[in-house]
Amino acid sequence: MAVENSTIEVSSKSGTEIINITGSVAEIVRNSKIKSGIVTVFVPGSTASVSTIEFEPNLVKDVKDAYERLVPSDIKYRHKETWGDDNGKSHVRATLTGPGIVIPFQDRELLLGQWQQIVLMDFDVPSRERKVIVQVMGD
Amino acid sequence: MAVENSTIEVSSKSGTEIINITGSVAEIVRNSKIKSGIVTVFVPGSTASVSTIEFEPNLVKDVKDAYERLVPSDIKYRHKETWGDDNGKSHVRATLTGPGIVIPFQDRELLLGQWQQIVLMDFDVPSRERKVIVQVMGD
Amino acid sequence: MAVENSTIEVSSKSGTEIINITGSVAEIVRNSKIKSGIVTVFVPGSTASVSTIEFEPNLVKDVKDAYERLVPSDIKYRHKETWGDDNGKSHVRATLTGPGIVIPFQDRELLLGQWQQIVLMDFDVPSRERKVIVQVMGD
Repeated sequence: MAVENSTIEVSSKSGTEIINITGSVAEIVRNSKIKSGIVTVFVPGSTASVSTIEFEPNLVKDVKDAYERLVPSDIKYRHKETWGDDNGKSHVRATLTGPGIVIPFQDRELLLGQWQQIVLMDFDVPSRERKVIVQVMGD
Repeated sequence: MAVENSTIEVSSKSGTEIINITGSVAEIVRNSKIKSGIVTVFVPGSTASVSTIEFEPNLVKDVKDAYERLVPSDIKYRHKETWGDDNGKSHVRATLTGPGIVIPFQDRELLLGQWQQIVLMDFDVPSRERKVIVQVMGD
Repeated sequence: MAVENSTIEVSSKSGTEIINITGSVAEIVRNSKIKSGIVTVFVPGSTASVSTIEFEPNLVKDVKDAYERLVPSDIKYRHKETWGDDNGKSHVRATLTGPGIVIPFQDRELLLGQWQQIVLMDFDVPSRERKVIVQVMGD
């Protein structure tokens, strides 16, 4: 049993952006000394989340529309009173969705569905340089 | 320390169905060689999620109603333009909720609350034969 | 590799309360024999969730407002017909959000962002004495 810590770097554009990071995570797992176990994909930050999706452009827009409908940009957030920041919605979306996911793998292959990709969802208002933790644990 | 990979098979009916899989997960943990650790319950697929609930029929309906209110069936999803599929809502619900959960256990017993069950929430439109990954890791 | 199980006790007030438990989780990780790995923070119960947030009072109110807007207190929940309980909304919020999160750590330090805290979100109606499972696993 062992633990291996990696970081991947992701650039996001301004506004909510959903970025496919499956290739980077799969490569870390494929090059690991660990054959079977879990990979924890975790974003250190309070305005982004990690989830899975069928990564095709129309569905990506559907998910952005859903967040806009559920946690709108154009209502008032008290968070602005604290820092003057306009990213109250970004924080709320991230807390509701969660900061990370855990994916099992076997024989160094992620046990994802055929149409299932891992995404970083960056809800923040400005563009950001994000670090995402990718930790492999197992046997 | 060791890792044990299992799969459970679940049949879902058409429309959003919430299925109690606690018994199957608890049995895998109870029969494991691993005494203490985590079980990762993960659905490989982009139209279903795993969570916990007090599994009683009225609350199951309340949760289905909430998803219908938040991510409605009767609005337009762009995903339909890509594949002609009517399951845009199913994908959006799954991405917002997440593909899996991690449950700690001790002495081969899941550390769940008294009224807390593990559920597969299949949001897809047609009935499906689902595989759910159940991976036990620990000491 | 090893597994260490701890429990932290949290008192919540009546109504949805969001409680910062970062200090307790960080202390368990800092005092662990395990240097690198994951900590699973899991609430055994079906009316509470664990997530992360920038823990400042205005944003905490924004998150509570969002839950009230998305899963309102003043609509009818069928769950009341089963037990007479008024916490249908609490259950629905918890199932949508999920019961726990997994956070990676290295050199006994949680890999959280600078403004990111771990919170117990207790959605239940009465005040509660909660136990939260904090399980450390790694090398």
